[in-house]
Amino acid sequence: MRESYRVAVVGATGAVGNTMLQLLAERSFPVASLKLLASHRSAGEILTFKNDPIVVEELTHDSFADVDVVFSSAGASVSREFMPTAVDKGALVIDNTSAFRMDQDTPLVVPEVNMDVARTHNGLIANPNCSTIQMMVALKPIYDAVGIKRIVVSTYQSVSGKSGRAVLELVQQTTEALEGKPITLDKFPHQMAFNVAFDWPFLDSGDNEEEVKMINETRKILNDDTIGVSATTVRVPVFFAHSESVNLETHKKLTAAETREILNNAPGVKLMDNPSNQEYPLAVDVAGKDEVYVGRIREDASIENGLNLWVVADNLRKGAALNAIQIAENLL
Amino acid sequence: MRESYRVAVVGATGAVGNTMLQLLAERSFPVASLKLLASHRSAGEILTFKNDPIVVEELTHDSFADVDVVFSSAGASVSREFMPTAVDKGALVIDNTSAFRMDQDTPLVVPEVNMDVARTHNGLIANPNCSTIQMMVALKPIYDAVGIKRIVVSTYQSVSGKSGRAVLELVQQTTEALEGKPITLDKFPHQMAFNVAFDWPFLDSGDNEEEVKMINETRKILNDDTIGVSATTVRVPVFFAHSESVNLETHKKLTAAETREILNNAPGVKLMDNPSNQEYPLAVDVAGKDEVYVGRIREDASIENGLNLWVVADNLRKGAALNAIQIAENLL
Repeated sequence: MRESYRVAVVGATGAVGNTMLQLLAERSFPVASLKLLASHRSAGEILTFKNDPIVVEELTHDSFADVDVVFSSAGASVSREFMPTAVDKGALVIDNTSAFRMDQDTPLVVPEVNMDVARTHNGLIANPNCSTIQMMVALKPIYDAVGIKRIVVSTYQSVSGKSGRAVLELVQQTTEALEGKPITLDKFPHQMAFNVAFDWPFLDSGDNEEEVKMINETRKILNDDTIGVSATTVRVPVFFAHSESVNLETHKKLTAAETREILNNAPGVKLMDNPSNQEYPLAVDVAGKDEVYVGRIREDASIENGLNLWVVADNLRKGAALNAIQIAENLL
Repeated sequence: MRESYRVAVVGATGAVGNTMLQLLAERSFPVASLKLLASHRSAGEILTFKNDPIVVEELTHDSFADVDVVFSSAGASVSREFMPTAVDKGALVIDNTSAFRMDQDTPLVVPEVNMDVARTHNGLIANPNCSTIQMMVALKPIYDAVGIKRIVVSTYQSVSGKSGRAVLELVQQTTEALEGKPITLDKFPHQMAFNVAFDWPFLDSGDNEEEVKMINETRKILNDDTIGVSATTVRVPVFFAHSESVNLETHKKLTAAETREILNNAPGVKLMDNPSNQEYPLAVDVAGKDEVYVGRIREDASIENGLNLWVVADNLRKGAALNAIQIAENLL
C-alpha cells in the first residue's frame, strides 16, 4: 500500500456507512483525509472518526476532487448518478449497491473468492449483496474441492440489512406488540416484530430482488453459469447478522468430516460445529465478528452428493463494509 | 357420530391442551363428559370448558375407566406409559406425541391426506409433528398430481411449539434484551429474543429430532419411501404459527399457475399468493386460523421440475389440537 489515501464515504450516515467508519479506524486503514458524504438532508450532521468530529457534506458531482478511494453505500440510484463522476476524477470506487454489480465490465468481488478479477477493474469494483457474500466465502472452498451443481438457500436476514431506521422500527414494533398497542408501519409494510416476512418489490417471476441477487451474483462470482440456484430470502426479527440454511448438491461426494476439514482451513471462515454441545453459529454471537461462521454441516441423504450447512455472518461487516474495505486493502 | 362421547384430555394444562379445550368448544365436539388429566404437579388446577370450571385430575392408570376418546399431548414418555392402558380400557386414543408415530402398526394421520389408514387402527392413532402436518396438507395435492421426488425444507418455527413457558420466556428475554439486561435462560439454552436457533437434542447424523421427524413422518404419511427429504428446522422469535420454505422437485413439470389452481381447490388449504400486493401468508396473521396457508408459489429454474412454496399454519391448531380433533371427528 501507498503510505495513505484520501478516502470518501458516500452514505456516511447510514447503517453501512457507520460500520465503515468503525472499521476504517479498527483496521488502521491508511487514511490521509476522510470526506463524509450524504444527501442534502443529512449534510451538516457531525460524525466522529477516531474521536475526531467530521462534518457530513452534501454529495455533489464536485465531491471527488482530491479523493483516491470512494466507498459508496447510499443506494443504487445515488451510485448510478455519482460514481461514474468519481471514476472520471480518477478515484477507485468500491460500490456497495446493486447499481453496477451485474455489468459485464464491473468486477463483483469477494476477496477470499475472486480477488483476481478485481485487478481488471476500470475504476469501479462492485461489492456483492450481503446475503451473497457470506454464502460465497463458505462455498468457494467446497466449489474448488468438488464442484457445485445446485444450491437451495433459505435465509434468516436481520433488519439492519434494510436500514438503521428499520432497526429502530423493530424496537418500536416489539414494544408495541408486548404492550398490545397498534403496530407502527413505516419502514416495513407489515409487522416485523414476532413475525417473519419478505422483502419487496417482487418481480414477475415471483422472486423478490434479494432472491434474484443471490442467484445472479453467485454465478457471476464463481464464474460458472452451470450452477443452479434457488433462493428464498426471509427477513426475521433479528437486529444484526444474517443466517442461511444452505443445501448443496456437489458434483462429487464430500462427507461431513471432509467438509469440516476443508472449511477449517478456509480463508475468512470460522468453523463452529459441535451442536451436541450447543456449539453452532448464532446471529447474536456473530454480530460484531469479521469471519463467516459455518456450522451444522450435515450430509443430506436425500440425494447422492448432498450437504447442508448453516452460514452466519455480520451483514454490516463482512456483508458490506468489511468486504469493501478488504477489496481496497488488497488492491492498493 | 354417536350422540356424544366421554372425552379425556391428557396434558390439559399445556399449550396444546389449552388449544384442545378451545377447539372442542369452538367446533361443538359432542362431549358427554370431559376429564382433564395432567401430572401430579398440575392436579388441582381449575380450567374452564364452555365457561364451566373443571378441576384437573392427576393422570394414573385408573384414569381411563368410562372414557371413549383420549387426546394426549403430555410428552412421549407419558404417552408411552399411559396410552396402552387407555387402549386396553377400550378408549380411542389420538396421541399428539412422538411416542408411537413411527410404529408400524400405528396409523400416522393427517385427515386431508391419509384418513383411509386411520380406519385400520388398533385403538391408537398418532398425530404427526406440527411442522410435518402443515407441509403434508400443502404437498399432498401436488403429490397426487405429479409425484414428488425430493423436498428441501427450511422452517421458521414459533416458540409455542416448545411449550407455553417458552412463550413466556421469549417475552421475558425480549424485555431484557431491549433493556440491556442479562438474558434469562431457562426453557432455552440460548438467547431466543432477536435471534434464531435450533432445537435439541442432536443425533449422531447431525440432524436434530425435529428434522428426523419431518423426514420420516413425511415418507410414512405419503406412504412413499422413494421421496428424498432434507429438513433444517429453525426456531425463530415468533409466538404462534410456523412458516416453512419448501423447495420441491416433482416428477413431472408443474407451472406456478397450475400449482395455484391445484392448491386453490385443495382441502384444508388457503391460497394467498399475490406478493406484489403484499399478499402472502404471515405468521402473525395465520395464528388463530384453522387452514394451512400457502403463498409465494414460484417455479424454481435451477432444476427441470422445481417449485418453491411458502407454507404457514398455526402450530397449536392445525399442527396439533385441530388435527387430532379432526381425526376423531372423521372416525367417530
